[in-house]
Amino acid sequence: MLEFDVNSSDKSARSGQLTVNGRKAKTPLFMPVATKGAVKTLTSEDLEELGVQAVISNMYHLLMAPGIEVIESAGGLHEFMNWDGVIFTDSGGFQMIRKDFDQDINDERLRFTSGGDEYEMTPRECVKNQWRLGPDVAMCLDHCPPYPADRGELEKSVRRTRKWAERCRREEMNLFGISQGGTVPELRRKSCRDMVDVGFQGYAVGGLSIGEPREEMYQMLEIADDVYPANKPRYLMGLGSPVELLESIERGVDIFDSAYPTRNARHRSVFTKKGRIDIRKSVHKQEYGPIDENCDCPTCKNYSRAYINHLCRAEELSWMRLTTVHNLHFLLELMRRARDAIEEERFEQFKRVFIDDYK
Amino acid sequence: MLEFDVNSSDKSARSGQLTVNGRKAKTPLFMPVATKGAVKTLTSEDLEELGVQAVISNMYHLLMAPGIEVIESAGGLHEFMNWDGVIFTDSGGFQMIRKDFDQDINDERLRFTSGGDEYEMTPRECVKNQWRLGPDVAMCLDHCPPYPADRGELEKSVRRTRKWAERCRREEMNLFGISQGGTVPELRRKSCRDMVDVGFQGYAVGGLSIGEPREEMYQMLEIADDVYPANKPRYLMGLGSPVELLESIERGVDIFDSAYPTRNARHRSVFTKKGRIDIRKSVHKQEYGPIDENCDCPTCKNYSRAYINHLCRAEELSWMRLTTVHNLHFLLELMRRARDAIEEERFEQFKRVFIDDYK
Repeated sequence: MLEFDVNSSDKSARSGQLTVNGRKAKTPLFMPVATKGAVKTLTSEDLEELGVQAVISNMYHLLMAPGIEVIESAGGLHEFMNWDGVIFTDSGGFQMIRKDFDQDINDERLRFTSGGDEYEMTPRECVKNQWRLGPDVAMCLDHCPPYPADRGELEKSVRRTRKWAERCRREEMNLFGISQGGTVPELRRKSCRDMVDVGFQGYAVGGLSIGEPREEMYQMLEIADDVYPANKPRYLMGLGSPVELLESIERGVDIFDSAYPTRNARHRSVFTKKGRIDIRKSVHKQEYGPIDENCDCPTCKNYSRAYINHLCRAEELSWMRLTTVHNLHFLLELMRRARDAIEEERFEQFKRVFIDDYK
Repeated sequence: MLEFDVNSSDKSARSGQLTVNGRKAKTPLFMPVATKGAVKTLTSEDLEELGVQAVISNMYHLLMAPGIEVIESAGGLHEFMNWDGVIFTDSGGFQMIRKDFDQDINDERLRFTSGGDEYEMTPRECVKNQWRLGPDVAMCLDHCPPYPADRGELEKSVRRTRKWAERCRREEMNLFGISQGGTVPELRRKSCRDMVDVGFQGYAVGGLSIGEPREEMYQMLEIADDVYPANKPRYLMGLGSPVELLESIERGVDIFDSAYPTRNARHRSVFTKKGRIDIRKSVHKQEYGPIDENCDCPTCKNYSRAYINHLCRAEELSWMRLTTVHNLHFLLELMRRARDAIEEERFEQFKRVFIDDYK
């Protein structure tokens, strides 16, 4: 059901291809978030035009609205969204647990309230709900403690994450396990090993990018790179700044998702190879060139900084789509260039040149 | 500079073609409003994909932001918007006069305040400002009284509209005159004659659709049809419901503009051949068919009512674009079908069947 081939590697960095249900995605792969079944401000045709290969939706959010059954009756998320690329679903554990952390959660089930209603869900039901949405890949329910957490909390979360992983696992599904363990090396290592023990189609690294120092995060990726089997895809959840992506690829990560490019776009912050700029600033009012020189995204091919600046100030909503298209294209293009660099065994240099320019 | 050919007519209804600066638009023509240099929620590529032939922007709004000089320096509105279809500009008189009606306006100039600043503009400057925006067709400054207005006010506005028209007229420009006169037949007739006296490339009917009974409005169109020369385009300003469009086409109108389809779309109201529906209503939550059966717009080809209903409730902004695309397509398609019906001399029947279904 799920195949993963590593085509080339350059030290720990890998380029490869994920094939699932006949759908293909090249790695390193960046997935925009379609939390509620849509990438904010875009249609599925926009995604296709951009060359997006995969998106990730969120079971918790879709359970809240429109409800699992509405999407199931539509024939699943692909049908509902009219999107034939790869779809991952996240468990929504991050959302369901953060609210009442450690209040009413045990190894068997979690309870949470939303909009005045109380919900109860077992890890198995969490995966079953994802499955009813018809994704290509689902994610285990994991137990992510807040940052900072003391060692006792981290140990408990590693233990519970393993128990939940065992309960989530189903033969008939493409399911990824998720390691926890914060930034404590031996706990992270243990949690990664737990996931491999239980056995999944792919392995994610969770509970990072929530406030810890970058260097500690990178160290955890090196542990995951060491423990996770080389022939399975590795997925770092929730992270998406250009520099972090490249640093993580260098440490063996294949797959990413993040709201970073799309959320920045909606806050007027657009990527250029010299770093981010605020497109609403008055300095851009009469700049008739594109957001980024040499960018060949639909926004840069068609519209000037001056026009987007005007739309933004005039509160014409289309500016958000234009900036979202640009930011996504920027990251997708970065992934394409990273793949080329890995295949040509010049990834480290590529990374250094990009970061020097961008910072 | 501007050519207009009537190809066919069916009683008073006409089908024809407008050619201006090498750009062509078939009539009956519906122009979406790009008030501030963009059709709300859409990009210029969307307009092209929809087959939009012309848009109308507003000098007053563009003067306020980003400023005439920003667009002039971009090379004009076509360049600024990246849109190579026909562009009309409206004078913005409607906006500039409504605020302080009859307070500080005379035959020579109008004064108004906006954002704390005071502006003064002669009719000639109003047209010159439009010209600096680089449209294909500009509109005279006209004097539109509120509804209802007493006979004295209407007479004054007819007189002033003529004086302003004389001052606006410039040989080198494609300029349309606009008649006033409210719904008083002899004043409307006088104002239409005034415009023909002064002499323009096309003739608009202004000051209607501001609260008066429909039948009175239609009567004014019959007067315009009678007075305005048959070989020039006639433009009814600010009106865009499907039924009103057809009734006006029947009375000899060639060109329309209105925020009606786009504003309705942003208020969740979408056209179907059986009338408008509120796409956010819960009855649509599990309707997996398109907004309108047999509609071949990009929205209806790709997305279900259920999906748009969900996006709307989830406040995912893309729903506004999907509904805007549909509503615009609906009116553009109505214009195409009206043209066919006129050419086949079955317009009255076409209109009757459409209205019976729609009401």
